[in-house]
Amino acid sequence: MIAPDMATMLGFVFTDAKIPGGVLQKLLTDAADKSLNCVTVDGDTSTSDTLLLTATGAARHAPIEEADDPVLVDFKRALDELLIELAQLLARDGEGATKFVTINVGGASSNGAARKIGLSVANSPLVKTAIAGEDANWGRIVMAVGKSGERADRDKLRISIGGVKITDGGQVVPHYDETPVSRHIKGTDVVIDIDLGIGRGRATVWTCDLTHGYIDINASYRS
Amino acid sequence: MIAPDMATMLGFVFTDAKIPGGVLQKLLTDAADKSLNCVTVDGDTSTSDTLLLTATGAARHAPIEEADDPVLVDFKRALDELLIELAQLLARDGEGATKFVTINVGGASSNGAARKIGLSVANSPLVKTAIAGEDANWGRIVMAVGKSGERADRDKLRISIGGVKITDGGQVVPHYDETPVSRHIKGTDVVIDIDLGIGRGRATVWTCDLTHGYIDINASYRS
Repeated sequence: MIAPDMATMLGFVFTDAKIPGGVLQKLLTDAADKSLNCVTVDGDTSTSDTLLLTATGAARHAPIEEADDPVLVDFKRALDELLIELAQLLARDGEGATKFVTINVGGASSNGAARKIGLSVANSPLVKTAIAGEDANWGRIVMAVGKSGERADRDKLRISIGGVKITDGGQVVPHYDETPVSRHIKGTDVVIDIDLGIGRGRATVWTCDLTHGYIDINASYRS
Repeated sequence: MIAPDMATMLGFVFTDAKIPGGVLQKLLTDAADKSLNCVTVDGDTSTSDTLLLTATGAARHAPIEEADDPVLVDFKRALDELLIELAQLLARDGEGATKFVTINVGGASSNGAARKIGLSVANSPLVKTAIAGEDANWGRIVMAVGKSGERADRDKLRISIGGVKITDGGQVVPHYDETPVSRHIKGTDVVIDIDLGIGRGRATVWTCDLTHGYIDINASYRS
């Protein structure tokens, strides 16, 4: 029950920096859009999503007034890294998850389109069960790209799994050898790269596989 | 792998009526939007969707020129009924399905909104696993209505399962007795009624539950 818009999650982040509330909110919104809003277990959301960033102001430094203050560069990077780690932990801890899946989308018409495509792949029950079954089923990935509704061109689509290019220019690459891809997908961390080849939009989305464990947890919780 | 836009399905409908192609197309589009485009197993689509309506013209009657010709009233009704039956059979035959689920949505801001809400509920893994587990989990239905993105007002939402009203005006009805609802959901045909209470849009969507059988079929197909 974890999906974008941060379902069933209470997140609390504290800093001693002296940063006013408006700036903190801007930093947090930007960082959440690249982390917790890019993770999904089953596409379902909940009602109690909370992510709070609190600054105690205990640190001794000149006050910070603007979110684009250059002094915040390191803080932003640390916040990004922390929230991405939290997001990844959520996917690793998904109901019944046996594999952690990273989906990198590039070449999309916009960053928003890239995220929507990534989430469409990440939420596809057919993609998720194929990964659970350790099958490098790139056809299901193509399907999930297509059903996202975002702009895509079959003849420009490139898909790699575990860093091994499978399709390019709408065709399976010559002499495609499934062996290294199968080896990769038998591991616990699966990486899928999708390049739309039509723009500069990019996003990374994290998810997990869909297994019998998911059914056990979500169907049998009252018995 | 059945979802709106008619995934992995080849449908052929024949009639002896004398109806020109343009009129047939209009009739078929209208009927498909109320039937095959309202069924989903897992929200995933495929590439080979086809629904063809062919008229042999063998019947002896005056030619029909317009889709709104009154003589077509009975034909339209028969076509609707046939396609709805086909749609329902698809859901009943969903991978691993043990229950057939009808979701009636009313009071939405438009018919399109009602269908989107119905499909959001029908595609929710949490709703589908709750039904598999025979739990009348109306909270998950509220969640799926909310995540559809369509206009909804929690305080006007009414939900019934098996014809038994559970929530009204944003609250569980007084003296709610789960017994008849539990009895209904233990059967093979589950009916969920959702009234948004904000407009006149309506739609009916059909789906099935999400079970271990789905995982077996879609994860283990190569072993």
